[in-house]
Amino acid sequence: MMLIKIGGGKAINYNAIAEDIKTLSEKEQVIIVHGASSTRDEIADKLGIPTQRITSPSGVTSVYTDKDAIDIFLMSYCGLINKRIVATLQDHGVNALGLSGIDGRLWEAKRKDVVYAIEGGRTKLIRDNLTGKVERVNSKLLQLLCGNGYTPVICPPALSFDGQIVNTDNDAVVVVLADALHIEKIVFLFEAAGLLKDFRNEKSLVKKITKKDLMSFMQSAEGSMKKKLLGTKKIVDMGFSAVYFGDGRIKNPVISALSGKGTVITA
Amino acid sequence: MMLIKIGGGKAINYNAIAEDIKTLSEKEQVIIVHGASSTRDEIADKLGIPTQRITSPSGVTSVYTDKDAIDIFLMSYCGLINKRIVATLQDHGVNALGLSGIDGRLWEAKRKDVVYAIEGGRTKLIRDNLTGKVERVNSKLLQLLCGNGYTPVICPPALSFDGQIVNTDNDAVVVVLADALHIEKIVFLFEAAGLLKDFRNEKSLVKKITKKDLMSFMQSAEGSMKKKLLGTKKIVDMGFSAVYFGDGRIKNPVISALSGKGTVITA
Repeated sequence: MMLIKIGGGKAINYNAIAEDIKTLSEKEQVIIVHGASSTRDEIADKLGIPTQRITSPSGVTSVYTDKDAIDIFLMSYCGLINKRIVATLQDHGVNALGLSGIDGRLWEAKRKDVVYAIEGGRTKLIRDNLTGKVERVNSKLLQLLCGNGYTPVICPPALSFDGQIVNTDNDAVVVVLADALHIEKIVFLFEAAGLLKDFRNEKSLVKKITKKDLMSFMQSAEGSMKKKLLGTKKIVDMGFSAVYFGDGRIKNPVISALSGKGTVITA
Repeated sequence: MMLIKIGGGKAINYNAIAEDIKTLSEKEQVIIVHGASSTRDEIADKLGIPTQRITSPSGVTSVYTDKDAIDIFLMSYCGLINKRIVATLQDHGVNALGLSGIDGRLWEAKRKDVVYAIEGGRTKLIRDNLTGKVERVNSKLLQLLCGNGYTPVICPPALSFDGQIVNTDNDAVVVVLADALHIEKIVFLFEAAGLLKDFRNEKSLVKKITKKDLMSFMQSAEGSMKKKLLGTKKIVDMGFSAVYFGDGRIKNPVISALSGKGTVITA
């Protein structure tokens, strides 16, 4: 079983990804998890309620998620991008089926009661942030769908144990999914050639890296790459043979990543 | 098996509907089909691309659906309302799972190549209208989910045979679903007490009506009720025992409709 995580950047080439998935899914079960951050921000701007970001005391930036932000999340992730990906895959002959973490309690999360944020040099306590950490995955539902010929296309939000729709870190859920489903290969596609030594320089691609060197890139990596590196470390720690980082903008994005044209991370 | 069609009006009481579905689904499989028209129009207005309507030469009004309108459709139907209903049901203890007609080719439609519309007294030919008529339903997928404890929550759009996302008449799909799944009871919930003799007068409720009298209401019914009456006639023609129209705004909306407090249509 292969898990492909598609980033939410504007330049992601969904047609090229669908073409590769058609080829790959003839031999192996594929599961897709996707983002939609650029579409979310675009819709939020158009609706006049732009995405707000908060920075934790440890320096990690995340999206501040109130009820309005959740609505925009549902529109962009579950609505626009999930269904456009499903339709593109269907058009390429892949029997895709879209699900959010809410459907059939696919992703169950523990809601964070409070979140600390740094604002103007001060630490602020936020109580209405609808975010959570996914702790349980409905693997039975995914197995049911996979066993009957469907290719699941999954996106956040998740459902909290107390019944609320909560935003969650997509890359962290990939780790939970990989563990629950005993996934063999994981491919992260995003808007870069792979892991870059200097994230501003596309030519500084790191072709191969082992677990022990992974953390040395944490300092220099930018925001969302930091989360990917943390997730990848956990995945490799769990005993997976390899994680692939690849460019989601090019022709044959998945096959290229699998053949080592991006970054290959091994134990 | 019972099918509940929830209209897309602003005053629909989703909590009350979920409460009833919890009670009913303990004894019987429930499938939900829902609209989201008021939310769609609201989002379209906010985005500055208001919903456009066209009138056919025979006087039927429908939504003009170009690519922008499909995007808004995906946001409002598959995103906002589908997931809000699924979360509300989950919160009431019903294992709901949301699907659009695109997912797993649940609703396959024949796209209408051209549509005729009356504009300023003239008949106009429209070629870019992304609408279709659902001709095939993936009943196997619904049986698979129902057989494994899930309550499907379904919404448009559909997928055309040539791979395009197309808008479709929700009430017409209910007829196709009812036939494909041998559904025994159908409840239509909307923003009125039931079928009204005079649609401006809430007190003119028709309590009982048989198939042969159904068409006499066609003339006086307003737009979306016309479509419901046409659908109901087809359903009753197919040999179903009863169709129920009920108020989606009240407490116990489904149970009230089933107990005859709205309109009961029999063969």
